[in-house]
Amino acid sequence: MPVLTLAAAQDLAAAALIRAGARPEAAASTARALVAAEADGLKGHGLARLPAYAAQLRSGKVAGAAVPSLTRPRPGLLAVDAAHGFAYPALDLAVAALPAPARAQGIAAAGIRRSHHCGAAGQPVEALADRGLVALLFANTPAAMAPWGGTAAVFGTNPVAFACPLPARPPIVVDLSLSKVARGAIMAARQRGEPIPEGWALDAAGRPTTDPAAALAGTMVPLGDAKGTALALMVELLAAGLTGGRYAAEASSFLDAEGGPPGTGQLLLAIDPEAFGPGALPRFADLAAAIEGQAGARLPGARRLALRARAAAAGIDLSEALLAEIRAL
Amino acid sequence: MPVLTLAAAQDLAAAALIRAGARPEAAASTARALVAAEADGLKGHGLARLPAYAAQLRSGKVAGAAVPSLTRPRPGLLAVDAAHGFAYPALDLAVAALPAPARAQGIAAAGIRRSHHCGAAGQPVEALADRGLVALLFANTPAAMAPWGGTAAVFGTNPVAFACPLPARPPIVVDLSLSKVARGAIMAARQRGEPIPEGWALDAAGRPTTDPAAALAGTMVPLGDAKGTALALMVELLAAGLTGGRYAAEASSFLDAEGGPPGTGQLLLAIDPEAFGPGALPRFADLAAAIEGQAGARLPGARRLALRARAAAAGIDLSEALLAEIRAL
Repeated sequence: MPVLTLAAAQDLAAAALIRAGARPEAAASTARALVAAEADGLKGHGLARLPAYAAQLRSGKVAGAAVPSLTRPRPGLLAVDAAHGFAYPALDLAVAALPAPARAQGIAAAGIRRSHHCGAAGQPVEALADRGLVALLFANTPAAMAPWGGTAAVFGTNPVAFACPLPARPPIVVDLSLSKVARGAIMAARQRGEPIPEGWALDAAGRPTTDPAAALAGTMVPLGDAKGTALALMVELLAAGLTGGRYAAEASSFLDAEGGPPGTGQLLLAIDPEAFGPGALPRFADLAAAIEGQAGARLPGARRLALRARAAAAGIDLSEALLAEIRAL
Repeated sequence: MPVLTLAAAQDLAAAALIRAGARPEAAASTARALVAAEADGLKGHGLARLPAYAAQLRSGKVAGAAVPSLTRPRPGLLAVDAAHGFAYPALDLAVAALPAPARAQGIAAAGIRRSHHCGAAGQPVEALADRGLVALLFANTPAAMAPWGGTAAVFGTNPVAFACPLPARPPIVVDLSLSKVARGAIMAARQRGEPIPEGWALDAAGRPTTDPAAALAGTMVPLGDAKGTALALMVELLAAGLTGGRYAAEASSFLDAEGGPPGTGQLLLAIDPEAFGPGALPRFADLAAAIEGQAGARLPGARRLALRARAAAAGIDLSEALLAEIRAL
C-alpha cells in the first residue's frame, strides 16, 4: 500500500481541489482537515471524501471561490457566513477569531451558516483547547434520523464535540455523532450481503429492520433511543435554527454532487477556564487521572493521539485505488 | 388519594423545610421546584425528595442558612456560590442574573459551585426560554457510572437540559440524564424481587448483570454505551471541573443525611437568539412543525405540559403515606 508523508498527502489533496475549482487557501484548509482526520484514524472524514468534494466543486454545489466572512453582532457572538464553500475555511476563521472575545467576555460563540460537512468535529474544539479554552461544537448534517415515534428523517446524525485543555499534555477531546452506529457500517453490511443487528436502523415505515437495504431507505436509530432523538433536536436548533443554517431535512447530501449547496450550520463555543480562577486546569487533570488510573479505561481520544503520532513519524497508508482516483481528479 | 392544590403543596413543603432549618426564601424556592416537578409528572424530582431534604437540613449536610452569592468575573460569566445550601436558590439567582448579560454580550454563562441536587434540570432552562433565551444546563451528580472499560464510578448520571423559545407557545424543553435508565428503576426491580434486563447496569467487577442488588453495588450503564460515557465526562468537566464544583466521585449522596455536603456543580448557558437576526424564532417553529406534523411524533416535553395543565386545574395527588411523612417532619 502506498505510504505518503502528511505534507505530501496535503499537497496532493490541495492540488486536486484546486484543479476542481477551489481557491488555494480554501483548498489548503480542506486538505489539512482531511489529512488530519486520516492521520487520526478517522477515515470516514479523511481522504476518501476527496473525490466527492471535487465533484461538488465541479458541479457548483460547493462554491470554489467562496471566502468566509465574519461579523460580530454582540461582544460575545460571531456570525460566520461560509458562503456555500467548504466548512473548513469558515471553521478556521471561527477558531482564529474566538479566543480574543472568549478571554475578554469569559465566553464567546461563533454561529456558522451556509456551511457544509464539518469533517472530524473534534478538530476545531481541539484547536481551541490548544489555545487554553474549553470548547464545544454542535453541527447538523443532512437528514438521517426521525423524531421518536415518527418515520420521516428531520435530524442529521449531528455530531457533538468537546475539548478541554490539560496542563502539559494534549487536551481531552470528545467527538461523537448521535446515531447509534455510522451509516457507513450499514453500507458495508449491504456490500457484504449480511444482515445488520436489530436496533441500528428503522425501515421507511419506522419499523426495526435487519435488512441493510431497507435500513438505507429508512432512518438511523439514535444512540440512547428517545434520549438521542432529543439531543439531535437540540443540535438542529443550536447549529442551524439559531445560526441561520438549513435544517437536516432542507439540506442536500454531503456525499454527491446533486442539487444545490447543503447550507447546514455549526455552533462553536469557547469558554476561558481561567475566568473561574486558576484552579480549573489542575482540576481537569484530576478527573483525567481518576480515569487513567483504572485498568481498562482511557480518556476519549487516546487512540486517535497514538495513531496521529504514528502517522507523523511513518506517514499514512492510502489504498492504490484511492490514490489513483485522487491523482486522476 | 389526597389531592392538594399547587399552592397548598408548596406551603406544606416550605413549612416542612423551614421546620427542618431552612431560611424561608430557600425553603420557598425549594418547595416551588419540587412541586413544579411533581406537577410535571417528574416524581423522581418531586415531593418524594422532601423527607431526605429535611433530614439533610437537620444533619447539617445542607446548610439551612446558606444564601447564594454571585460575582461577575468577566462580562459574560457569572460565578455563583451555592454555599452548600440547596441548589434551587442558586439556580434562581443564576436565572434572574443571566438575561441581562446574555442580551448584552449575546451569550453568557453561570457556573454554580458548592451546590446540591439540581432537581428537574428542565426548569431553569425553561425559565430562561420563557424570557426569550436559548438555554443549556449541564449538572453533575454523585458517582454512578464508570469510564468505558473501567469499573469505578467517576461520573454521575449527569443531566443535560436545553430549552428554546417558540413564538406564541411554550418553549421546547429537552431534559435527560446520561444513564440508560434511572437508578430508581433498578431499586423498584429489587423491591419486586425481579431481575433487570441486561444492558442496564454492571456489577462491581464491571460485568453485565441482571441482578438488581449486584447492579446497585456496581455502576449504571450510560445511554449509547461508550458515547454516553464520553458525554458524562464532558458534563463532569463543564459542571464541576470548570465551575469549582466537586466531581461525582468526590460528592456525597443527594439521598441520605450522611457525611458532608455533596458540593456538586452546574453550568447554565444562555444565548440571545435575536443576536443572529430576527429569523431564529420562526425557524425554531419550522422544526417544531416538521416534528408535530408526523403521526406518532411529538416535541420533547409535550407530556410534561399536559400533566402540568391538569395539575394546575385539578391539583396533585399525593399518597397518604407521603403526605403523612411530610406532615410529621
